[in-house]
Amino acid sequence: MTKTIVAVIGCGTIANSAHIPAYVANKDVEIKYFCDIRKERAEQAVEKYGCGTAVEDYRVILDDPEVMAVSICTPNNVHASIAIDCMRADKHVLCEKPAARTYKEALEMQKVQHETGKTLNIGVVNRFNKGVNIIKQMIESGELGELYHVVVSFRAHRSIPGLGGDFTTKAVAGGGALIDWGVHFLDIVMYCAGDPKPKTVSGQAYSKLGKDMPNYAYLNMWAGPPNYEGSYDVDDFVTAMIRTEGPSITVNGAWAQNIGVDEMYIDFLGDKAGIRLQYGKEFTLYSAQHGALLESTAKYPQNNAFQEEIDGFIAGIHSGEKLPSHIDTVIVTAQMIEAIYRSSEEGREISLLEAGALA
Amino acid sequence: MTKTIVAVIGCGTIANSAHIPAYVANKDVEIKYFCDIRKERAEQAVEKYGCGTAVEDYRVILDDPEVMAVSICTPNNVHASIAIDCMRADKHVLCEKPAARTYKEALEMQKVQHETGKTLNIGVVNRFNKGVNIIKQMIESGELGELYHVVVSFRAHRSIPGLGGDFTTKAVAGGGALIDWGVHFLDIVMYCAGDPKPKTVSGQAYSKLGKDMPNYAYLNMWAGPPNYEGSYDVDDFVTAMIRTEGPSITVNGAWAQNIGVDEMYIDFLGDKAGIRLQYGKEFTLYSAQHGALLESTAKYPQNNAFQEEIDGFIAGIHSGEKLPSHIDTVIVTAQMIEAIYRSSEEGREISLLEAGALA
Amino acid sequence: MTKTIVAVIGCGTIANSAHIPAYVANKDVEIKYFCDIRKERAEQAVEKYGCGTAVEDYRVILDDPEVMAVSICTPNNVHASIAIDCMRADKHVLCEKPAARTYKEALEMQKVQHETGKTLNIGVVNRFNKGVNIIKQMIESGELGELYHVVVSFRAHRSIPGLGGDFTTKAVAGGGALIDWGVHFLDIVMYCAGDPKPKTVSGQAYSKLGKDMPNYAYLNMWAGPPNYEGSYDVDDFVTAMIRTEGPSITVNGAWAQNIGVDEMYIDFLGDKAGIRLQYGKEFTLYSAQHGALLESTAKYPQNNAFQEEIDGFIAGIHSGEKLPSHIDTVIVTAQMIEAIYRSSEEGREISLLEAGALA
Amino acid sequence: MTKTIVAVIGCGTIANSAHIPAYVANKDVEIKYFCDIRKERAEQAVEKYGCGTAVEDYRVILDDPEVMAVSICTPNNVHASIAIDCMRADKHVLCEKPAARTYKEALEMQKVQHETGKTLNIGVVNRFNKGVNIIKQMIESGELGELYHVVVSFRAHRSIPGLGGDFTTKAVAGGGALIDWGVHFLDIVMYCAGDPKPKTVSGQAYSKLGKDMPNYAYLNMWAGPPNYEGSYDVDDFVTAMIRTEGPSITVNGAWAQNIGVDEMYIDFLGDKAGIRLQYGKEFTLYSAQHGALLESTAKYPQNNAFQEEIDGFIAGIHSGEKLPSHIDTVIVTAQMIEAIYRSSEEGREISLLEAGALA
Repeated sequence: MTKTIVAVIGCGTIANSAHIPAYVANKDVEIKYFCDIRKERAEQAVEKYGCGTAVEDYRVILDDPEVMAVSICTPNNVHASIAIDCMRADKHVLCEKPAARTYKEALEMQKVQHETGKTLNIGVVNRFNKGVNIIKQMIESGELGELYHVVVSFRAHRSIPGLGGDFTTKAVAGGGALIDWGVHFLDIVMYCAGDPKPKTVSGQAYSKLGKDMPNYAYLNMWAGPPNYEGSYDVDDFVTAMIRTEGPSITVNGAWAQNIGVDEMYIDFLGDKAGIRLQYGKEFTLYSAQHGALLESTAKYPQNNAFQEEIDGFIAGIHSGEKLPSHIDTVIVTAQMIEAIYRSSEEGREISLLEAGALA
Repeated sequence: MTKTIVAVIGCGTIANSAHIPAYVANKDVEIKYFCDIRKERAEQAVEKYGCGTAVEDYRVILDDPEVMAVSICTPNNVHASIAIDCMRADKHVLCEKPAARTYKEALEMQKVQHETGKTLNIGVVNRFNKGVNIIKQMIESGELGELYHVVVSFRAHRSIPGLGGDFTTKAVAGGGALIDWGVHFLDIVMYCAGDPKPKTVSGQAYSKLGKDMPNYAYLNMWAGPPNYEGSYDVDDFVTAMIRTEGPSITVNGAWAQNIGVDEMYIDFLGDKAGIRLQYGKEFTLYSAQHGALLESTAKYPQNNAFQEEIDGFIAGIHSGEKLPSHIDTVIVTAQMIEAIYRSSEEGREISLLEAGALA
Repeated sequence: MTKTIVAVIGCGTIANSAHIPAYVANKDVEIKYFCDIRKERAEQAVEKYGCGTAVEDYRVILDDPEVMAVSICTPNNVHASIAIDCMRADKHVLCEKPAARTYKEALEMQKVQHETGKTLNIGVVNRFNKGVNIIKQMIESGELGELYHVVVSFRAHRSIPGLGGDFTTKAVAGGGALIDWGVHFLDIVMYCAGDPKPKTVSGQAYSKLGKDMPNYAYLNMWAGPPNYEGSYDVDDFVTAMIRTEGPSITVNGAWAQNIGVDEMYIDFLGDKAGIRLQYGKEFTLYSAQHGALLESTAKYPQNNAFQEEIDGFIAGIHSGEKLPSHIDTVIVTAQMIEAIYRSSEEGREISLLEAGALA
Repeated sequence: MTKTIVAVIGCGTIANSAHIPAYVANKDVEIKYFCDIRKERAEQAVEKYGCGTAVEDYRVILDDPEVMAVSICTPNNVHASIAIDCMRADKHVLCEKPAARTYKEALEMQKVQHETGKTLNIGVVNRFNKGVNIIKQMIESGELGELYHVVVSFRAHRSIPGLGGDFTTKAVAGGGALIDWGVHFLDIVMYCAGDPKPKTVSGQAYSKLGKDMPNYAYLNMWAGPPNYEGSYDVDDFVTAMIRTEGPSITVNGAWAQNIGVDEMYIDFLGDKAGIRLQYGKEFTLYSAQHGALLESTAKYPQNNAFQEEIDGFIAGIHSGEKLPSHIDTVIVTAQMIEAIYRSSEEGREISLLEAGALA
């Protein structure tokens, strides 16, 4: 079989930690281009991985008919335009999460996917996580009984990324803790619960702890160092309550808060059993049998979810299989996030019951 | 000074564990009547405390002009009628929480209080808790900066009281976990946050784990034993999001849930500092100074909040001082609880902005 | 209903910690006699429990037609003779474990039970333990798959009881660690595994750590203090391998050993799941689902197994219900213990396949 | 001194992790041949270690008179035939454990050793472990008093090697957990206890957790990955009770079991002191002195047991010294293992008292 020729657009953290190593480990793939508007980052990738050509302008990739597939690892603000350009240029696309800054942008991406028929997967990598899939199976097999509520908590004491940079600039990122972390948590909930249609969303998003940038105390900063000349206009705390056709969901999330206990979990409450998933770690199942309360921890072989995401993307290009990370499944999460921000601005609940709500 | 003559109506758990011992310990008080429709409980109290007369019908008390003050420790369904009768019969009233089964009943109580001018305090005993008052002072003095959100969690693994009895029968109790536990948690939030006016309420209440009574697994049961012939039609899980003129509030509460981690706390999130109060226990203050993150625990002399509640009630009768447990402050919590139940039934957010909402 | 009149023969530790309190708590029972050859112990019981008459000679009880039921809490050497006398005198009998010193004595007790038709239960109290019964249900419902082996470990660092007393004198107790502790462990295995017929037994019993009495080092001694003038001729370590029609069983037990790690557990190995029961404590279930290994701990309301044993004994007298502690179920454990001692003496495996083996 | 010329037959895991590096580190040795029926493995060794010639057929080695010594690191099924061929071809042999698949094969190897006088050592590497030798000295010097019983436990939750491969195929390996792991544990016991003659053996071996290969849940697999097309007909759990002229021994071993606690230890029970050896790790000594119970851990320089095994083998060739790993000491363990399997098949104890038992 001839190798699938791919290009990586955006050569920052997520490209280097996840996409590129997974492409390199896939024997059916050849990386032809590393692209970054900061050309030295593209050149470093060429040198580090010993393959490909460094380019600054992604239009080089659009014009090369050999390139079948593209990973988009740029900041969020150009996800939509690059993804759309790539699909129109006959490329299959794997775009990092979130799909885009806004629901509207995500809808445009979906529209072009439908028009062109090219693959458009979003980097909701937890859908390839072993533990998450075991939970999904447990829920689907009825082990939890009726799943009536989900408690989502992604609250960190101090974890604002790159203060003053792309992550904390709304025009670039589209939002803060909700769009960056919440997208993963809501996606896991939707995936495990069988993608239930959302009905109402009420939320509040706050920009509090980072806004006084020089006085933001912290121990470590990922995607740092801070740029005190930059801007900070995104949410560092978010709260929401969502009703769906399945369970209701409550969300409390913080990149930073003045509570020193990190709580990163999802509680799936069923009337027969419940599960607490520690994000990125193990889960615990709580049930009852023969009058006893059972607490069960599960051990299973850890998989490399990024590798499965990439391998599935490449295999799907050829087989036509639609993955759970397809834009058609992810679009609902984009709508929910949009609704949380809208509800926060308007101080009232948003109904998603009407067709085309928020579109 | 002549002693204040009091009567205790309802001689169950809360009367015996809190009200009666506190009256006995107050040297200015004489208990004249113990009243209970199950007369043997009244008689046991007479025998146990060595004072008073046992009566079955509270109208004996209404007719006795010597009685100045009454504690109402009955099930919730007769709170309103007895309190109103007592005030109209010229008695001061301390009524256990919740004020009543519904907001409407509570409003009637308040109306009669205003008409008669008699004291009507509700048993929101945490307002007399030392730690809660320290937190209130910290918030009011600005140590937390802007209090923008409060996370309320009163989630127990297995703690349904008296399955099949008064607590789990809506016609008697008015509700379940929310009206029984939530009333305390919301009251602490309102008290500490300066009683901010609520604006919107969205909630869902579920009756799940207790409804299949014979198969409800548990380790201990307070107010038990279970009565499998009785009824179970109240909430054992509740979730809500509330916007106020001050902080937003999210609530997750459970008498029972299939998550085996008890979480009983209130997180006060300020932009300068935050506090986690472990319900009924200590609190921790999280702040930042000189670039360092500080975690502070507070030690203080523990007080007997029930004693202060009772002593304050008796003293207030004579001084005319209005306590923080007055019906006028508690009425808003009753409105919020009503709004959560209403929102749950209607599947949409309830606005409390208009005057007289839900009245 | 008239009360059931009972007598307690032997007023030592087990009578005072278990039998007598349970009779006192049973409203349908009246204790008429406390009997002990050391009469002061009988008299102390009369005084402590405020009922009954103290007697020295149990024949007083035999002669009193009012006495319906007897608890035998004496040393092992008179279990058989007193139980037999009582049944012949028309009394129902609850005899402490072990049934007797030897299989032969136990068979004689069983024979008289069959002749007289009186109840003869043995104090295998774990059959009334909640956790043990949950395990039995799990095994019977097939949750463990095929139960193929059981590992029994009752190994203590230092726990020889009453060095030099009844417990360590073979003529009185019939044996040591095996007959005193092993009887409980084997009984739990037999009960949970559905009382499978034993086929072969190989064992070795050692009398090592206590035999040099003055130099036996220990931290605490139950049923003490030591009597250095007494005798020590029983096993303090025992090992055995047993084949049954169900699982095979290995046993390692020690009242005392020079390994400082107490290990008191039973491992039930099934091909689908397994259970480790910590003796007298909780159990853990190990299974696999959806490719994950699950470790489950069970919480359940702790019951008072002694109370259920006594209540069941009394109720069974009137209802005729045969309890799982009946001599007919316990007799097999007596046979297995006899076989272990015999195998140890003869240095070879004992077959129990022939009818009447060891009888 | 001229170098000793050696050949390594079988270039799999144990050759690469132990034998070859030890030969390379021995300055008196030159490796002339790497032999493997999968020739690429032999070639990889040539490349990796930069010496020797790769051959596919070990008869090349037999025919080369320069080769003085051979390591046999093949699967168990060809241990005997290759070892015999080598000795007859005038080579000294170090054969990996177990000596062979069966006692009969091992006896043939021993017979040829006696006939030829060539060295035949077996890879019972623990006999060169520093801690094991300290324990042996303690026992021999009487510090433990009489060693009356040994508890052997090699129980893993999930550790079946190469499911469906050589390890789990009886025709190749001769057995499973017992022959692969048990051989090491029994060998340590025999070595430390002074190689006491076994008298009776009763055992049961079970093939349970691996037999439904596709549903065997595990976290890691050594000698993997699984071959679901292969066969699984060996023991994954074994239990045994052995009487010797010295201590009795009980064995419980599992490559896999539904108990999630790994227990890999040997308890040496003496009447003065006892030792728990954590396999491959430290040991603890439990004793009593002056009425106190002592728990002692030992620290000592860790040695490389494989290096000592190889160095001793080479030195012994020249000195004629008989090592503790000589076939004459190991043959008894082979007999015991054979007896356990035989006892399991026949459901009865096997006596080894008669001369030539099982031969």
